[in-house]
Amino acid sequence: MLNSLKQEVLEANLALPQHQLVTFTWGNVSAVDRKTGLMVIKPSGVDYSAMTLDDMVVVELASGRRVEGRCKPSSDSDTHRALYLAFEALGGIVHTHYRHATIWAQAGRDIPAWGTTHADYFYGAIPCTRLMTDDEINGRYEWETGQVIVETFRHRELSPSTLPAVLVNAHGPFAWGSDAANAVHNAVVLEEIAYMGIFSRQLSPELPAIQRSLLVKHYMRKHGKEAYYGQ
Amino acid sequence: MLNSLKQEVLEANLALPQHQLVTFTWGNVSAVDRKTGLMVIKPSGVDYSAMTLDDMVVVELASGRRVEGRCKPSSDSDTHRALYLAFEALGGIVHTHYRHATIWAQAGRDIPAWGTTHADYFYGAIPCTRLMTDDEINGRYEWETGQVIVETFRHRELSPSTLPAVLVNAHGPFAWGSDAANAVHNAVVLEEIAYMGIFSRQLSPELPAIQRSLLVKHYMRKHGKEAYYGQ
Amino acid sequence: MLNSLKQEVLEANLALPQHQLVTFTWGNVSAVDRKTGLMVIKPSGVDYSAMTLDDMVVVELASGRRVEGRCKPSSDSDTHRALYLAFEALGGIVHTHYRHATIWAQAGRDIPAWGTTHADYFYGAIPCTRLMTDDEINGRYEWETGQVIVETFRHRELSPSTLPAVLVNAHGPFAWGSDAANAVHNAVVLEEIAYMGIFSRQLSPELPAIQRSLLVKHYMRKHGKEAYYGQ
Amino acid sequence: MLNSLKQEVLEANLALPQHQLVTFTWGNVSAVDRKTGLMVIKPSGVDYSAMTLDDMVVVELASGRRVEGRCKPSSDSDTHRALYLAFEALGGIVHTHYRHATIWAQAGRDIPAWGTTHADYFYGAIPCTRLMTDDEINGRYEWETGQVIVETFRHRELSPSTLPAVLVNAHGPFAWGSDAANAVHNAVVLEEIAYMGIFSRQLSPELPAIQRSLLVKHYMRKHGKEAYYGQ
Repeated sequence: MLNSLKQEVLEANLALPQHQLVTFTWGNVSAVDRKTGLMVIKPSGVDYSAMTLDDMVVVELASGRRVEGRCKPSSDSDTHRALYLAFEALGGIVHTHYRHATIWAQAGRDIPAWGTTHADYFYGAIPCTRLMTDDEINGRYEWETGQVIVETFRHRELSPSTLPAVLVNAHGPFAWGSDAANAVHNAVVLEEIAYMGIFSRQLSPELPAIQRSLLVKHYMRKHGKEAYYGQ
Repeated sequence: MLNSLKQEVLEANLALPQHQLVTFTWGNVSAVDRKTGLMVIKPSGVDYSAMTLDDMVVVELASGRRVEGRCKPSSDSDTHRALYLAFEALGGIVHTHYRHATIWAQAGRDIPAWGTTHADYFYGAIPCTRLMTDDEINGRYEWETGQVIVETFRHRELSPSTLPAVLVNAHGPFAWGSDAANAVHNAVVLEEIAYMGIFSRQLSPELPAIQRSLLVKHYMRKHGKEAYYGQ
Repeated sequence: MLNSLKQEVLEANLALPQHQLVTFTWGNVSAVDRKTGLMVIKPSGVDYSAMTLDDMVVVELASGRRVEGRCKPSSDSDTHRALYLAFEALGGIVHTHYRHATIWAQAGRDIPAWGTTHADYFYGAIPCTRLMTDDEINGRYEWETGQVIVETFRHRELSPSTLPAVLVNAHGPFAWGSDAANAVHNAVVLEEIAYMGIFSRQLSPELPAIQRSLLVKHYMRKHGKEAYYGQ
Repeated sequence: MLNSLKQEVLEANLALPQHQLVTFTWGNVSAVDRKTGLMVIKPSGVDYSAMTLDDMVVVELASGRRVEGRCKPSSDSDTHRALYLAFEALGGIVHTHYRHATIWAQAGRDIPAWGTTHADYFYGAIPCTRLMTDDEINGRYEWETGQVIVETFRHRELSPSTLPAVLVNAHGPFAWGSDAANAVHNAVVLEEIAYMGIFSRQLSPELPAIQRSLLVKHYMRKHGKEAYYGQ
């Protein structure tokens, strides 16, 4: 079932080492089929070099039940579910521990919109969640990780459609998009702006975010109704 | 038309990923034919891996009109035009969002001449433009981006011939040269000195620019009338 | 003798350049055979590109005597012996001078547990030893290097089973594991967290370690009795 | 003439891009034949990818006269000559503008002996020269660059045999060794310790050099009369 979606998820997972976004098996990509309410996700702890279509796991969004697949789903599976259930616009999700986005997550800081590279993809600062409580950590941890992301977007009145990434405090980034490939694309961009942000801040410690007009201009020329970037 | 120039522009664009200067399709190279007043430029949003001679777009400098090419020109096309029209010496232009030059642009700072690597190619600090106004951003943005570069060189009495690069504030670098290949060459050098500058400043926060005599010596032994570097 | 262990040690040594953990011949991996009390270790100063099974050296743990092998063992051989003799749980050990772990060792600082990447592998801060005394350095230096590591774990009441790495002050890291391959795996992770730690601290200079509950959760979901990470 | 030495110099030059120590043609290696008083050096401004044995240039040490070779010698040729003439122990010299050593040179700072990686190769801090005077720069610049290096070693009573590298202030590193290959080896090590030094200092801004006993131990176990490192 869902063979075409499995193929997309497999390819998106294999794109992670190609973009040098993962060490060992750290990282996972999923995609959702909204009609059936099912999610396809990478198995837990399987080498990228040996991964095949049949390793992909199908999970029911509502229950978390494994519907198909010989392997256990990624241990972050419940975080993916929580995000798909809360955010209708998400078609694919990627989680990695890659270096520079993880550095910001470990530091517990938002990445401000410090340039047009950022504004081309993210319509404002990349938010960092609050620290999780001991109860959340000791409870349904992976599910609660999703909930703290959802809370961050709700409390700050952010849209996951125009801000396709988040930093989980003390942990690392999640990025998403219209499908699995688009989620990986956004994860690559996040890593670029995370890297540049560290050293822009080093050169100008009090650096303000870019002007609102520049943020709007760059985001909208690429994503707005009258976008004129690309063919 | 202009097949030889198209070939040069294609090769210069393909050199960007070879020098690891681009992520995805971020970056574009153009070259100008002064006799016909035409510019050849990369198409907008096309993958480097799939780019061919026929994708190159021919644009009229004076009007911005597409004269030949099945694709839309790079969205930065009007910035390139503005620079060719203002600066007679330019034969090729390259724009990227590469990491270390972009870091300086985001930080809104000039890159001082902090060593002979810099002096071998750039006859003084790499200037960073002022921030653009809301009117410029909301108006003919890409054209105005060119104008703010031109203004920077005019107000500071800098020569684009001896300073073949600029940082657009909150955005990223433009570099240029006698032709497309030379522009890419200068972009690679800019990235090197941008990287080294970040950490030279970290080691010596109050580091002054190198002596005038050393700047002159290195620039002139390579670019002066009595240059003795190379064969 | 011990051909299977030699093969493991050879492969683990060859994994070092594959993971870009070594420059020239800087680095060595060993493994122990607890039944016979013998250790297999890389020879001193031999190129990775030319290394074969027959270059592996067999050393008696108790005495340090070379039992088999045409080459001299790694000059760090006595440090490996000291660790195997003191810490029963160790099956393999790796020593490198790789960049970011060595940076922390040179700075003489522990690497705090600043994120879940760390907590997935290390159950607390990576300890840095005290500086060695002149007597230790001028005496049986390599053996004493092992002793100062042992002292660090004993005085701080740390377990080498749950903290499979150490930083030798002014020198560099040792990592270990259940076997040679696992030791290399932990060395790769150490390098990742060492890199991320430098810049997490730069962004948040007073960054506290992650909560105890988060450290326990991540370490135990991967290494505890009820681990649920992986297949 | 000197075909065997030319081959060594060619191979050492080609080793520079292999070790990622050069951008474009930035960098040059030479070697000396003490019997004939001749030096073989890389030609100026020739691509590494196209360089052949016949491009190597033979220069008379005493006069600087080109004795053989169709190309002009490296523009840094007189600096190499000055060093060979002043320092009898030198068999090969390498000059690059590689990133991290150049960062220290631009910052005008010695690299302190901050770890055993350093002590394995360099018997103390890597010295940085004073700034050159306008007269030196405007006079026989490349020759004077050599003289300021020689002055640095003489005034500080340093030995080029045990300290096989220097940083030319505002410029970049020179490294040397018993022959061309050994010089490149030392240049690679210099780059490693330059990188690690930047961030060791960031973690511990007041970091003192390692103890004298540790410096002696590591240098001597590798280079002393009773060296026991290697086979």
